[in-house]
Amino acid sequence: MTEIIRTAEALREKVAGWKRSGMLVGVVPTMGALHEGHLSLARAARAQSDRVIVTVFVNPMQFNNASDLETYPRSEAQDLALLEAEGVDVLFAPGVDEVYPEGFATTVSVSGITEPLEGAFRPGHFDGMATVCTKLFGMTQAGRAFFGEKDWQQLQVVQRFVRDLNIPVRIIGCPTIREEDGLAMSSRNLLLGPTDRALAPLLHREMQAAATQLRAGAQAQPVLDEAKATLLAAGFRDIDYFELRSVDGLRPASDLSQPVRLLAALWLGDVRLIDNIAV
Amino acid sequence: MTEIIRTAEALREKVAGWKRSGMLVGVVPTMGALHEGHLSLARAARAQSDRVIVTVFVNPMQFNNASDLETYPRSEAQDLALLEAEGVDVLFAPGVDEVYPEGFATTVSVSGITEPLEGAFRPGHFDGMATVCTKLFGMTQAGRAFFGEKDWQQLQVVQRFVRDLNIPVRIIGCPTIREEDGLAMSSRNLLLGPTDRALAPLLHREMQAAATQLRAGAQAQPVLDEAKATLLAAGFRDIDYFELRSVDGLRPASDLSQPVRLLAALWLGDVRLIDNIAV
Repeated sequence: MTEIIRTAEALREKVAGWKRSGMLVGVVPTMGALHEGHLSLARAARAQSDRVIVTVFVNPMQFNNASDLETYPRSEAQDLALLEAEGVDVLFAPGVDEVYPEGFATTVSVSGITEPLEGAFRPGHFDGMATVCTKLFGMTQAGRAFFGEKDWQQLQVVQRFVRDLNIPVRIIGCPTIREEDGLAMSSRNLLLGPTDRALAPLLHREMQAAATQLRAGAQAQPVLDEAKATLLAAGFRDIDYFELRSVDGLRPASDLSQPVRLLAALWLGDVRLIDNIAV
Repeated sequence: MTEIIRTAEALREKVAGWKRSGMLVGVVPTMGALHEGHLSLARAARAQSDRVIVTVFVNPMQFNNASDLETYPRSEAQDLALLEAEGVDVLFAPGVDEVYPEGFATTVSVSGITEPLEGAFRPGHFDGMATVCTKLFGMTQAGRAFFGEKDWQQLQVVQRFVRDLNIPVRIIGCPTIREEDGLAMSSRNLLLGPTDRALAPLLHREMQAAATQLRAGAQAQPVLDEAKATLLAAGFRDIDYFELRSVDGLRPASDLSQPVRLLAALWLGDVRLIDNIAV
């Protein structure tokens, strides 16, 4: 039975009981509209913790775009059924006023790795994400927290501030889960019409093709330029970035002399998709 | 026996053992040069916790003035002896590189109540204080933390971000401890020469006199102006502020229709003194 909890105070009491029994709490922070990617995180948490909390909170502070916040999919009843099936102990689904009560005035911000990529296109996004995750770690007192590699930069930012602030939680990154056609699972995929949905897997195919060429020793810039041209010609509306970056520090990279990752953000109509792969 | 610990990792192990036994940890964050004010906090912690950690860290991130950081008094051997006498379990005294290792990139900031008073005269001070205290709460996993009312605005800021970030620590404010002549105890008092030391208690006397007049119904501005003129005429070099503020939110106040506090920061030569009292 998955229990729904909506207030920090009720969650605190629940967790205090577990802690008294010496239990290790695992948390999976989500924005709901749960799919197989989230469920893989819940399974990892289940395997590596004594009790599992999945949080569902569509965090206004990390949306830089009001329409994106407005249209973000919400499906609590279905989310609950999925979590029941995974043996999750608590679905923590607080309201906005519970998370940001009157007088709220604190921000957690990370410099450096938050500046390129998503940070350049979504001002304030990482401040909002870091702040709400700090709160969720405090509320759940989790010893382990599970994040998908799909949001690679987010995972790096979380690892950074958890280390910097000495928050007593271990961050565990889990592999991106994909549809059979290669499209990275994302709640925003629900917003794609049939034509765009059919086109979407081209992103992952082009990323894989680029990675193959890079591994074979091709120069980075022509490979990236060609992939971008292919995607735009196929019908992607706009490309925010399609870049090679160092794993350590997300610095621009032009070759494979250090561990690198290919990261992309593109628009299909009004829907923004992101993805990344190791090279 | 007070044990000195210098790394977050060693502290984590020590605290983990206590936590396994269900002990409540109390922490007193300080910048060292301990005096009776700090010791009163250690005693409160001793009375209200199973284990007590006093942290001594002169935090560069909260100093806006290099010379203030340079001249800030340091006296670890004496601090240790004082803490031994109070039955403190651990003196946590990390180095700067331990607290801010290479790559450190995170800031905790509070808006609103950080802006007037100390915030207006010490840019970045409260960001540095909030960040290091968040770290110390994470490192010590303390259930209770003890702060002096001497730094009234600091106490309000700590209460704000602890609540905002759901950090599982209870903040306990303790009364200002004064010398027999009324001067609020402060590590910076050690920097006063004999003439300035003799003059310093006038600050508290003038604050008390102003509070008495305000309680008797006097208009605020003339009372504050007169006190400031007296202090400057007596030999105080400069007054950063000498103001009446609401207890709730530190908003400017001109009468006693709400709970208010009188707060002051003044310079005696090169030494900056602060104080505050309830009105």
